[in-house]
Amino acid sequence: MHLSEFVDRLDTELQVDQWAGADYAVNGLQVGPERADVDRVAFAVDGVVETFEQAAAADADALVVHHGISWGGIDRVTGKEYERVRALLDNDIALYAAHAPLDAHDEYGNAARLCDRLGLDIVAPFGESGPGHAGQRGRAETPFSTVDLREELATLEGAGDVQVLDFGPDELSDIAVLTGSGTDWLDEARAAGVDALVTGEGKQPAYHEAKEAGISVFLAGHYATETLGVKALQSLAEEWGLDTTYISHPTGL
Amino acid sequence: MHLSEFVDRLDTELQVDQWAGADYAVNGLQVGPERADVDRVAFAVDGVVETFEQAAAADADALVVHHGISWGGIDRVTGKEYERVRALLDNDIALYAAHAPLDAHDEYGNAARLCDRLGLDIVAPFGESGPGHAGQRGRAETPFSTVDLREELATLEGAGDVQVLDFGPDELSDIAVLTGSGTDWLDEARAAGVDALVTGEGKQPAYHEAKEAGISVFLAGHYATETLGVKALQSLAEEWGLDTTYISHPTGL
Amino acid sequence: MHLSEFVDRLDTELQVDQWAGADYAVNGLQVGPERADVDRVAFAVDGVVETFEQAAAADADALVVHHGISWGGIDRVTGKEYERVRALLDNDIALYAAHAPLDAHDEYGNAARLCDRLGLDIVAPFGESGPGHAGQRGRAETPFSTVDLREELATLEGAGDVQVLDFGPDELSDIAVLTGSGTDWLDEARAAGVDALVTGEGKQPAYHEAKEAGISVFLAGHYATETLGVKALQSLAEEWGLDTTYISHPTGL
Amino acid sequence: MHLSEFVDRLDTELQVDQWAGADYAVNGLQVGPERADVDRVAFAVDGVVETFEQAAAADADALVVHHGISWGGIDRVTGKEYERVRALLDNDIALYAAHAPLDAHDEYGNAARLCDRLGLDIVAPFGESGPGHAGQRGRAETPFSTVDLREELATLEGAGDVQVLDFGPDELSDIAVLTGSGTDWLDEARAAGVDALVTGEGKQPAYHEAKEAGISVFLAGHYATETLGVKALQSLAEEWGLDTTYISHPTGL
Amino acid sequence: MHLSEFVDRLDTELQVDQWAGADYAVNGLQVGPERADVDRVAFAVDGVVETFEQAAAADADALVVHHGISWGGIDRVTGKEYERVRALLDNDIALYAAHAPLDAHDEYGNAARLCDRLGLDIVAPFGESGPGHAGQRGRAETPFSTVDLREELATLEGAGDVQVLDFGPDELSDIAVLTGSGTDWLDEARAAGVDALVTGEGKQPAYHEAKEAGISVFLAGHYATETLGVKALQSLAEEWGLDTTYISHPTGL
Amino acid sequence: MHLSEFVDRLDTELQVDQWAGADYAVNGLQVGPERADVDRVAFAVDGVVETFEQAAAADADALVVHHGISWGGIDRVTGKEYERVRALLDNDIALYAAHAPLDAHDEYGNAARLCDRLGLDIVAPFGESGPGHAGQRGRAETPFSTVDLREELATLEGAGDVQVLDFGPDELSDIAVLTGSGTDWLDEARAAGVDALVTGEGKQPAYHEAKEAGISVFLAGHYATETLGVKALQSLAEEWGLDTTYISHPTGL
Repeated sequence: MHLSEFVDRLDTELQVDQWAGADYAVNGLQVGPERADVDRVAFAVDGVVETFEQAAAADADALVVHHGISWGGIDRVTGKEYERVRALLDNDIALYAAHAPLDAHDEYGNAARLCDRLGLDIVAPFGESGPGHAGQRGRAETPFSTVDLREELATLEGAGDVQVLDFGPDELSDIAVLTGSGTDWLDEARAAGVDALVTGEGKQPAYHEAKEAGISVFLAGHYATETLGVKALQSLAEEWGLDTTYISHPTGL
Repeated sequence: MHLSEFVDRLDTELQVDQWAGADYAVNGLQVGPERADVDRVAFAVDGVVETFEQAAAADADALVVHHGISWGGIDRVTGKEYERVRALLDNDIALYAAHAPLDAHDEYGNAARLCDRLGLDIVAPFGESGPGHAGQRGRAETPFSTVDLREELATLEGAGDVQVLDFGPDELSDIAVLTGSGTDWLDEARAAGVDALVTGEGKQPAYHEAKEAGISVFLAGHYATETLGVKALQSLAEEWGLDTTYISHPTGL
Repeated sequence: MHLSEFVDRLDTELQVDQWAGADYAVNGLQVGPERADVDRVAFAVDGVVETFEQAAAADADALVVHHGISWGGIDRVTGKEYERVRALLDNDIALYAAHAPLDAHDEYGNAARLCDRLGLDIVAPFGESGPGHAGQRGRAETPFSTVDLREELATLEGAGDVQVLDFGPDELSDIAVLTGSGTDWLDEARAAGVDALVTGEGKQPAYHEAKEAGISVFLAGHYATETLGVKALQSLAEEWGLDTTYISHPTGL
Repeated sequence: MHLSEFVDRLDTELQVDQWAGADYAVNGLQVGPERADVDRVAFAVDGVVETFEQAAAADADALVVHHGISWGGIDRVTGKEYERVRALLDNDIALYAAHAPLDAHDEYGNAARLCDRLGLDIVAPFGESGPGHAGQRGRAETPFSTVDLREELATLEGAGDVQVLDFGPDELSDIAVLTGSGTDWLDEARAAGVDALVTGEGKQPAYHEAKEAGISVFLAGHYATETLGVKALQSLAEEWGLDTTYISHPTGL
Repeated sequence: MHLSEFVDRLDTELQVDQWAGADYAVNGLQVGPERADVDRVAFAVDGVVETFEQAAAADADALVVHHGISWGGIDRVTGKEYERVRALLDNDIALYAAHAPLDAHDEYGNAARLCDRLGLDIVAPFGESGPGHAGQRGRAETPFSTVDLREELATLEGAGDVQVLDFGPDELSDIAVLTGSGTDWLDEARAAGVDALVTGEGKQPAYHEAKEAGISVFLAGHYATETLGVKALQSLAEEWGLDTTYISHPTGL
Repeated sequence: MHLSEFVDRLDTELQVDQWAGADYAVNGLQVGPERADVDRVAFAVDGVVETFEQAAAADADALVVHHGISWGGIDRVTGKEYERVRALLDNDIALYAAHAPLDAHDEYGNAARLCDRLGLDIVAPFGESGPGHAGQRGRAETPFSTVDLREELATLEGAGDVQVLDFGPDELSDIAVLTGSGTDWLDEARAAGVDALVTGEGKQPAYHEAKEAGISVFLAGHYATETLGVKALQSLAEEWGLDTTYISHPTGL
């Protein structure tokens, strides 16, 4: 498949156009030539020197990531940007990044996939963000206990100890899921009246905001909550007849 | 002492004026009447319902915090803002917040106090931020090992397990200190060539940025790294002849 | 009725969402707890200490005003903001504000109500403002003389001497109505070719702009031209089965 | 005198450069050719068709005003802008406007002149505005009663009935003066603790802000409070050897 | 015809409203009185003193141009703005400007007209700009050679030597047309894969961008490529029964 | 010399810091690794694939240009950005760009060097731009005729036919020099009263602005007027003991 066709297909599936100007990340093809073929595609959460080298070792022509290397543009190709661009160009690997469009997507999105993994029925979008949302609100037919939900999250690829701010009810059935860094939406979670918020990393205000709102917050790790979206794209690429490989590189964050 | 005099003294000491428009936080008196007396002052890291109630229990007239309740202004006194304002007004407690000015201050600042605690000689400001800086760069006369620095940080009030991204040299003597959420400055740390960055919480990009830069990052907790600044202000208030009390409320974040 | 339901109903009737980001005022619930009941509602033009105390004296649970206390957010709960928030919280009164949405509304709006009072048929919106308009353009079946229109306006609650910039024709039938401070729209009035502009307060440029345009401007007072909108909301609340009271407090401005 | 020299002198005296970008008005020469001579200069508060025609009748080559015709630029020379530009060009009159620089000036400024007229000693600038201030704070050696201050203000050229919001003390000695539209600075007046604010026109919030602050507000008219600045410039022009004339045209606003 | 009707007709035909806020130029009537009649209309590319005088010599009541005199508003009617406004007012000529709306228009637009002149079938809009586009992409049934296209362009009114950056294929059939200053869109031309870009003036980056992209760029002159749009409007005015005249004044740029 | 030292020296000489945020170009090191040595440096006007390859052919370690590849940041390393970055990285060439700082510099700057070449005494900076200026105003002891100045400019490297808008006086002694694209400053030239403006490329408004102002404009080519600055830096590098080479690649623009 031509690289341009591969890029067009992903842009279309992920409705990348809708996020133009609304995501600090540059979505779509971040690094790559005008003309190239793509036979083998690697998938990873983070686009960094290490995953670029692993993609090269796997003979990939392109790498699809959630976190790319261009955030609001690259001012200078120096420092870490130099090393990252160099690793891509030296190995002839094109880099495709899907940030907000992949968080938000109702089918392939990180939150949608995580709801599915937890057995939650999606009842509404959650997490206002730009032209759409960054997460999902799900309902568990059988409520989770805090211990059970924590254990379930601990089985995610790359999850370590799942930290819990245990301020919600004993039975958790109304659950907001916003992967990555989701504690900025605790006000919305409070207004919505959910029992719990499942996210990746926690910021300073989260403890008291959760306590005052009576919501349990599960911090399962930024990496661990964001592998499912790129894996969903991997399945899509397989359907398109491409060779694929997934690069696992948990960070503990 | 009149509340207005207490506020003026803090504003002056912390050079609050210099940060007008450059800090998302509103610095200075956030909540309080025009005329009141201050005899007893409480100090805490976070300005939240729980610390407001503890300040009331301690008979405080005012509470000085690092994290206040007005960030870019309060749109509506509803939700958590209602509960927080209510807790202050019902208990006649004035709230004074010092955010960026307290991070930056060369004597009372969080980073300056933490350098002092670690026995580092401050060699330069670190962490460009608005009109100044948000941290300090220190030098250890006797280099730390990773284990030693981690153990030292674990003795901070409120510190739990200190997480280390152990990518720097074995001997750590050139150390950037930026309390709270400091991993956004890893590019500056890389350009400066430091051995280690000591901060509170870690964000997603930190793992690979630290690894690619060969810098060890110590995540000692947002709360744990930011108690020293308000404690320094407590000492100042004591010098002014005021009764003081410190409210400890670690968050695990 | 739950406070949240009362707020939702008003937000919906007034289409508050359409004005998000387009009105310097914060519309909707400005001050109030998450959970409360509303049995008795007061209505007033201005949300200030005095009307808060009168609402308390009337045993109101909530006060609906045209001019609230949050304009672009409240930076600090100090000075007059402290006194106003305190008066609301001490008396357990929720504050709901409807500014631009109440000026603009085609049924409950200040301009629409004033047209009705003057016997004008509304022919078009007037006064471009954000996503909509701030006033109405009406037609009098029988033209007013300057004296008659002035006298009619002098009967409004809170009107004192109505000031007239008498530069229009003798017979006034095509009349723009924009309550409050409407002389900023004299260019639009000139382009529209109206005979008169009815508004509340006048700003410096109005005299010559009216004279050069040949338009008569009636300055009936900011307060006096803006009581009709909140009174229309009062009727609505009565229909919903709530106890209501109107607080009259003219300002002479 | 060449027009360009006349303009340069005024720009220099009024420090017009300091207000670039900080005043919505365009200060300095607003309308005029590159090369012209100035023998006779008219002065007026408002730059409008009527004063342009009176300047022409007085054989003036230039007109100096406080309120010009370019506010944030002239988008189209149509409507009132067409008539005003036409009146200037048809009569070969250059238009010079001094808005914020003339309010602020410590010697020629409207507030400084009005303090002088009222016999107040200027003690500090008042009314933060852009790079400077828009008014002055003065002290009366012998305090005014409300009646006396009102009567004194009623003697200003163009003053009609002076409206008073009589909420301050009986004796008024600490007086903020901000000509034109000054009620936006009532918060600053409250924080400063003045007894009274003297200004021109009043806006809706002024009544309750004055009442809650315990400050008396004197509304002497926008026009009436702003004739002294242009008259001070007239004296200056006389010193430069130019023929001058003052055009009086009160507006009742 | 009343001037206001003439203006309304042009505004409607050119969909001027769609470009509000998206064009640095002020489109529509730039200079003119509220009431005037239009019998004779002149058309020119540039609205400058010289064309204003020629319009006056031709007894025109109005002049329609592509480049007017108000770009982001007129701060001061001084310098060249004074001379230009003066020339219009002294000769009682109204000025109507159509900038982006005339570039973009699918029927009257400069690019559409130039495609027609070159015998190209328009296949798609070209040149993203504001809410629309600034050019057209056309296809030549019989491909042009570089020499032929250059010669054809040299026959445009006002064209001198047509400069060619000859980096495209020998046969040119897929041709982007963006009149005036179009080399800023060479990235879009490259992504679209066209053979050639026809435009007016060239900017510094164009040489290497064209060379690296393998696109031939024809610089036929800003003036020469933008006479066809105003001429199309002239035909329209003739259809409306107005007397018209075209003012030719090539600039060599 | 270490690359970092070379970069520091240039940054210091050119006072690059002063232009941060004021130049759309990213000044300083645009592409390069953290650690590298520089023995041989190439200099060129334009940083493009062709000059990168010529620098490689000349065995250069670094290339210093006036026009770099990062303008407001690089959103995506695709299209021409991919080819340009690739050419640099494949050949291990670091790219240093000096745009506005090199135009403005009083010693090494393009305008200063061109004044020197023309034998003009610099009398003042010309061309307000950001924190400084973009050109120089010079005086010829013996006035130029139009023909002589044109011929002199035709001797610049890369100059072709010099286009002249011949609207100034016969004797040209007061001459504004602003290299590259300088016709945007014709208003300033008019206000300054110069006889001529020497620049590189011309934009559409220049013809009539020059004519109405009575100023002769010399369009000597963007490339041709901007070789002298980089050549001045080349001399500086020679003084520092580095091997240098100049890459000539005129564009005809």
